[in-house]
Amino acid sequence: MSDLFEQLKAIVGPKGFSTDPAEIAPHLTEWRSKYEGSSPLLLKPASTQEVSAILALCHKAGAAVVPQGGNTGLVGAQIPFHNEILLSLSRMNQIRSLDKHDASLIAEAGVVLSTAQSHADEVGLLLAPSLASEGSAMIGGLISSNAGGVNVLRYGMMREQVLGLEVVLANGHVLNTLRTLRKDNTGYDLKQLFIGAEGTLGIITAAALRLVPKPSERATAFVAVPDVNAATALLARLQESTNGLLNAFEVLARSGLELVLAHIAGAKDPFAAPAPWYVLCEASGIKGVSEAFLSGLESALEDGIAADVVIASSEAQRESLWRLRETMSEAQKLEGPSLKHDISVPVSAAARFIETAIAAVAARLPEARPVPFGHLGDGNLHFNFQMAKGTDPKHYLAHWDEIQQIVHDIVHEFGGSFSAEHGVGIMKRDALARYKTVQEVELMRTLKRALDPKSILNPGKLIPD
Amino acid sequence: MSDLFEQLKAIVGPKGFSTDPAEIAPHLTEWRSKYEGSSPLLLKPASTQEVSAILALCHKAGAAVVPQGGNTGLVGAQIPFHNEILLSLSRMNQIRSLDKHDASLIAEAGVVLSTAQSHADEVGLLLAPSLASEGSAMIGGLISSNAGGVNVLRYGMMREQVLGLEVVLANGHVLNTLRTLRKDNTGYDLKQLFIGAEGTLGIITAAALRLVPKPSERATAFVAVPDVNAATALLARLQESTNGLLNAFEVLARSGLELVLAHIAGAKDPFAAPAPWYVLCEASGIKGVSEAFLSGLESALEDGIAADVVIASSEAQRESLWRLRETMSEAQKLEGPSLKHDISVPVSAAARFIETAIAAVAARLPEARPVPFGHLGDGNLHFNFQMAKGTDPKHYLAHWDEIQQIVHDIVHEFGGSFSAEHGVGIMKRDALARYKTVQEVELMRTLKRALDPKSILNPGKLIPD
Repeated sequence: MSDLFEQLKAIVGPKGFSTDPAEIAPHLTEWRSKYEGSSPLLLKPASTQEVSAILALCHKAGAAVVPQGGNTGLVGAQIPFHNEILLSLSRMNQIRSLDKHDASLIAEAGVVLSTAQSHADEVGLLLAPSLASEGSAMIGGLISSNAGGVNVLRYGMMREQVLGLEVVLANGHVLNTLRTLRKDNTGYDLKQLFIGAEGTLGIITAAALRLVPKPSERATAFVAVPDVNAATALLARLQESTNGLLNAFEVLARSGLELVLAHIAGAKDPFAAPAPWYVLCEASGIKGVSEAFLSGLESALEDGIAADVVIASSEAQRESLWRLRETMSEAQKLEGPSLKHDISVPVSAAARFIETAIAAVAARLPEARPVPFGHLGDGNLHFNFQMAKGTDPKHYLAHWDEIQQIVHDIVHEFGGSFSAEHGVGIMKRDALARYKTVQEVELMRTLKRALDPKSILNPGKLIPD
Repeated sequence: MSDLFEQLKAIVGPKGFSTDPAEIAPHLTEWRSKYEGSSPLLLKPASTQEVSAILALCHKAGAAVVPQGGNTGLVGAQIPFHNEILLSLSRMNQIRSLDKHDASLIAEAGVVLSTAQSHADEVGLLLAPSLASEGSAMIGGLISSNAGGVNVLRYGMMREQVLGLEVVLANGHVLNTLRTLRKDNTGYDLKQLFIGAEGTLGIITAAALRLVPKPSERATAFVAVPDVNAATALLARLQESTNGLLNAFEVLARSGLELVLAHIAGAKDPFAAPAPWYVLCEASGIKGVSEAFLSGLESALEDGIAADVVIASSEAQRESLWRLRETMSEAQKLEGPSLKHDISVPVSAAARFIETAIAAVAARLPEARPVPFGHLGDGNLHFNFQMAKGTDPKHYLAHWDEIQQIVHDIVHEFGGSFSAEHGVGIMKRDALARYKTVQEVELMRTLKRALDPKSILNPGKLIPD
């Protein structure tokens, strides 16, 4: 092993590695401290050639490698749990090209999302993905986890932004599909294999990403609705009135708003009377989008789909409305522990799913207080249950696995997903084994064997043993 | 073999097969009569279960199967060249579900595109893909070839419409990912493998497709531009002014317009004076899109990006402008034979590519008259060369392979694609071998071996021997 390590160090040079536990430590745990790993060697290659040479050696030696970007993943995919070599892409941080007419940029894996966004902005375009961790999440990790975020309703997941990839395969060969074409029907679309594969099939070193025009007008509303079916109908109504220019459609229950009002300084109920459910929605695009958005809201009010509406009349008011949604997680944390789920269901099934799942959890754990909220526009709900006051937190959280399975079973019945945007990693491998069909799991294993026969790439992640 | 055939016939029943050469014949050649195949047995299964049973048997026997939809492909992918069993999906023609709130439908592989479009229309939504053959092309084939068409600029290729697939694998196992979710990060996105794979990795039996809101306003213009760089600048200008609501951006050279004016009854030059290049562009969406489109055109005129503009002021005028573009192929055919290419390049490289490739072809074949046109918005050009009058057609067309390679070599230098939307099939397997890297071809072979180890699925297609 020490021979291998010396060879690896020689590839990356003195700036490209560390064996210092203090320097490696921040890479071994993530920000929620839910996972902790270990690694004897941190490699920080500066080029694709170095990554290629590293994997060629590791492949020969059968030494496992865990790739890591900004270390912002939530399911443990980027953590070395079995003392693997840790390969950070952080030094591969160049923007290789940027073109306004192609509406694309080519970024290396270690470019931080906010940096890539700034470059797009310089040519008057938008790199659509946006998420809370954009100041540290890196392009390679975002693609490897097929990240979601706040613009998915309008622009799709990370997958939809990828025009081409440069990937180092398990044996060190470099697969280069870094094209910026919008149309290219020349055989299997190989880049798709690596998007959302959590580094188990290859290591992404660079990506060509599409850019989109920037919206020139925006309208935001907070809407009181009688129930989730009304919220779903409102979604269809607004998509129709804006011709698909909605960029956010978020739902929260009264129970959630109450937590925000109780815990977040300056939070105010936009309405005089309480409503059972609320929608925060926003449309953006050309001049005229506000009018189209408002006309949809008006007709929804007339039809009783919406009970009451507040329109943001200033940027300050817009921010205060968004704050009611964005502080949901913080308010939940301040209230106490929660049992959490990152799930999606078909939008048409959202109301029935919520009703069914709340009843099932109540039957098993009456002290669980449902606080569902999330991106209803994508069918993605953060389907959380707050611990009731006066309960023992340890006793409450001991139900995590059991409640999760109750919820995921119902998600599954409704044709939903047990991981809408966070991925699988180590956290949801068991769920994958439970809810995917035998054929799906077998085909995933077939791909893993075909692309990484020695299983040196992020072993133990995503695919159940 | 006859035992196998009897078993296969028993699976599908009397309505589900034919051995009658007259009945099989229309399936063995395509509409341009460029290819002709042969098959002893046509199977027309009516259900996924039947397809599964067929493949299980064929897998065991090592008997090859060529799947076929509407038989509208242009590269020979759907033709049995080696007397394979022909499997038509045409009887699997049910719409399994349709939901306005999910904005999705689930269609079987044999549903004709125009039928699926009508169903979407019934719930007030749009199934975006649209192409000349939509009255006969079927969903399974469209997905297997990742079809393009006229709405790609706005809505993407067929791949972007697919939410989930039902696929029968080589061994007869059914892979079911028929979900209508917008967010589902639960392991490898297996459906991507089969999109654009031309039936070589599995047989698609049904698909969940996304639907989009219908535009409520539309504006169309025919623009004279000084050169291709100006056309490219106009594209960026209009994408900015409409915030990405362009749905068409087509380019044609003066040489092309002249052919249309010469051969197509009723065709009129929209302008008094000739211009070297023309753009047909269209934007659609909410009320206000016309104004945004016109303001972009105005600023382009001011800056000299556009030399002259005609705006369609009626549906009749819109149709006559579109006719100038849509009759390009017909006019070319009436003029005489052409050497044709379906290529794409990065939009920013279009002008330099056209100049370079025209010069290279002129150096080799001075009698070739360049008539480039196509979907410049996607970088996709039908880069055709018309035979000069008085030339011998046989002598001219004998240069097909040589000129194609000259053009494709230059496409490749510019980071382009030798098949923008038609696929590979049998026609472009050699080009795939020439222009893809060793790593790309090897990975394609790895996937083929992993998913179809006995090579019974559309053997000889897409992947070079």
